[in-house]
Amino acid sequence: MEPRLLKGFRDYLPEQMIARQSVINAIRNVYERYGFVPLDTPALEYTETLAGRAVYGTEGSGQIYTFQDRDNEWVSLRYDLTVPLSRVIALYKELPRPFRRYQVGPVWRVDKPGPGRYREFVQFDLDTVGCPDMLADAEILSAIHDVLLQLGLSRFRVRFSSRKVLNALIAFAGIDACRSHDVFRILDKLDRIGQKGIAEEMKGGRLDVSGDFIPGLGLSDSQVVRLLEFLNLPQPSRAIALDGLSQLFAGVANAGEGLDELSAIHEYLTALNIGDDQVAIDVSLARGLEYYTGPIFEAILLDAPEFGSIFGGGRYDGLVERFLGEKVPATGASIGVDRLLAAILKLGALELRPSTATVLVTVMDPQWRVEYQKITRELRQAGINTELYLGKEKGVGKQLQYANRQRIPIAVLLGADEAAQGIVSIKDLRVGSKAQAELKDRSTWLQARPGQFTVPRPQVVEAVRSILSG
Amino acid sequence: MEPRLLKGFRDYLPEQMIARQSVINAIRNVYERYGFVPLDTPALEYTETLAGRAVYGTEGSGQIYTFQDRDNEWVSLRYDLTVPLSRVIALYKELPRPFRRYQVGPVWRVDKPGPGRYREFVQFDLDTVGCPDMLADAEILSAIHDVLLQLGLSRFRVRFSSRKVLNALIAFAGIDACRSHDVFRILDKLDRIGQKGIAEEMKGGRLDVSGDFIPGLGLSDSQVVRLLEFLNLPQPSRAIALDGLSQLFAGVANAGEGLDELSAIHEYLTALNIGDDQVAIDVSLARGLEYYTGPIFEAILLDAPEFGSIFGGGRYDGLVERFLGEKVPATGASIGVDRLLAAILKLGALELRPSTATVLVTVMDPQWRVEYQKITRELRQAGINTELYLGKEKGVGKQLQYANRQRIPIAVLLGADEAAQGIVSIKDLRVGSKAQAELKDRSTWLQARPGQFTVPRPQVVEAVRSILSG
Repeated sequence: MEPRLLKGFRDYLPEQMIARQSVINAIRNVYERYGFVPLDTPALEYTETLAGRAVYGTEGSGQIYTFQDRDNEWVSLRYDLTVPLSRVIALYKELPRPFRRYQVGPVWRVDKPGPGRYREFVQFDLDTVGCPDMLADAEILSAIHDVLLQLGLSRFRVRFSSRKVLNALIAFAGIDACRSHDVFRILDKLDRIGQKGIAEEMKGGRLDVSGDFIPGLGLSDSQVVRLLEFLNLPQPSRAIALDGLSQLFAGVANAGEGLDELSAIHEYLTALNIGDDQVAIDVSLARGLEYYTGPIFEAILLDAPEFGSIFGGGRYDGLVERFLGEKVPATGASIGVDRLLAAILKLGALELRPSTATVLVTVMDPQWRVEYQKITRELRQAGINTELYLGKEKGVGKQLQYANRQRIPIAVLLGADEAAQGIVSIKDLRVGSKAQAELKDRSTWLQARPGQFTVPRPQVVEAVRSILSG
Repeated sequence: MEPRLLKGFRDYLPEQMIARQSVINAIRNVYERYGFVPLDTPALEYTETLAGRAVYGTEGSGQIYTFQDRDNEWVSLRYDLTVPLSRVIALYKELPRPFRRYQVGPVWRVDKPGPGRYREFVQFDLDTVGCPDMLADAEILSAIHDVLLQLGLSRFRVRFSSRKVLNALIAFAGIDACRSHDVFRILDKLDRIGQKGIAEEMKGGRLDVSGDFIPGLGLSDSQVVRLLEFLNLPQPSRAIALDGLSQLFAGVANAGEGLDELSAIHEYLTALNIGDDQVAIDVSLARGLEYYTGPIFEAILLDAPEFGSIFGGGRYDGLVERFLGEKVPATGASIGVDRLLAAILKLGALELRPSTATVLVTVMDPQWRVEYQKITRELRQAGINTELYLGKEKGVGKQLQYANRQRIPIAVLLGADEAAQGIVSIKDLRVGSKAQAELKDRSTWLQARPGQFTVPRPQVVEAVRSILSG
């Protein structure tokens, strides 16, 4: 039988997986530093829990993996971690409010597979449920800011706006409110298609690169002029963006609500010393999902813009309402871990390592086999990640090649030569030279019979430690 | 809409999830100390990759979640992590041999739901592919031994035997080799049904507790006598068990192979100072899965035997052959993380904590709001997990109750009283007393206007640190 990986899916081989784990750990550490708590929910949910155009929109709903299980129930693989969270909030009344949780795990979408597009990918979500204050939103933004710095990425831009500002835009441009989501969906493409593309899709439609015709919304010229006026607001700083918005929307009813949200977040961020260059207001931000009701967030890496948004989210005060019948304020965002990792690797901000081991204990001479095991065990007990060579190669050269290929920095050697001299060789493979350990009190473990001596294991551990410490 | 959790599945709320993560981290640390590397594979595989009676047996195959996807491909949720590993080995020829990998993740089985029985559960697997030497098997046993000690569980018994010993038993008892798997499947029930139950199932059958008749294999009395003779071999130590086996099987052809395997593992363990009381030979061990070909492993907790085996595995030299057409030696085992966690919690070896936070910064007076944020930020920057209170309660009493309920040990208080005195209160909630921080140089941050002072944030951090350190 031919071994086949399912189309649209990927394996994470060790090199990539070690890197992914280090990214996940870094995110987890920051989120726990913020006092968020972990949650896990099943991969499968009743289909009705996920279904509904109002939740994921037409396109999203069409991407849900759905099937009938052995009990004839319709079940679905989760599409995101937000809807399962809203189910959890509704189900367990005993959870504290606000409920500040993180969750990391795969989600599944029947997307068209392509380069960098997979049908299973890991999301790392952060949400606060039960807090109407914009402080909760500011914490989400502050946390992603800290995550990116923690990952060694200083050139990023976190952006925020509010669906309420976009609602004011709809009123300002004189567009029918029932077209809002179509308008937002097109605005969300700004980074990809530019203002010209936006204008075309808002009006009569346009041809995309592959020659397909994308029908337009049929808005009037004057409506589109107003949309562009909005998109062209100068935003060199959060304060100036806020000024521009309040002037533009001076006569628009209810425009104040969205502006108040942005101002509040701006003030909280300022108090935290988080500057305009790192977390900015961007009025063009729209986000595709239908369930957002207030602030919306996104982040891009300035040196890897082709990866698009590696973090996105917003406030969704209505999502828990589906189950509870009462509005529950909620805000949160998701990091696309696989996309972020791909960007980090492209930027060279993380080095790939194929092994977790720091030391390889080579296996040179069968008569020393028990000693190899004991040295290995003692290194492990000292907390040093150690691999005992289990491969086929008998020669030390091939074994050291293996260590080099696996980028294991240190090798321990004990063969006939070493035994005759009463030593154990400890090589720092990064410098390439044969850096033998300085073993003291040699007379105590050198014995009369040639090739036999007591291996000074504590000294081996000490020598490895001293190489590691520099 | 009613919020419903899918039948047979479970949510991991924070308290349980924090505990699960700490167990997973402990296992990962030990496995990385052994130099094993992580791998991840998709939840979904082509059905043909998993299917086949020869892999999981009739019962197992019937428990695989299978459906047709949007491309009309038959796909299945993975049943374990071993078969995906064998696919990976066959697919990526560039992987080093031996390939020593760990993998942690959920697997799915359409099992009858019941107390403690779920259709999704997390497995933590450890395997070495490409090493025929029993040293690989001894490392698996040594690793689980270290994991259990690491988790604070000293009263356990890791057991091993070999399918080859069981094959010798089949010959010794004069049973037709094609009945082997049926015999093994019944032997695997020994802990649950005892020797009497085993004898009945081997002969004419028996009534189980619920009154159902379980048909027997129809073995003869003399065959069953021999099986029982084998089960009753004295096994006070590995050495005595080996002696007994070699005497019992003295005239049996090919019995030597299994004995050699057990002897080799015994010697390796002895070299590692791993004693009979922790890792023992148990000839009655059978393991249900059909694909084992050599050594088999299992572990139980002596004070929580009702959880059954929390670790199990063995050598499966034929599994990669399905894809590659050549035999590839492989051995490994799996920890049932959820079952192990349940046992640990029952034994009280791990304390449940509902929060990840060490400090709660209370929010008492709106005029100090920016200071609360700044104190929070500074504690976080110092690496201290800190929650800023975002709930509805205005009173400090209720906020401290919240901290107590969440078992957050330290609270930071700054209200009108504190401001008037020019102090910040830092309470160690574990001792209950109002342990105010010793803030030095008070004159520098006390100001003329009452209720206004410069909050000495570095001193707050220092005070928290000093409470934590002792």
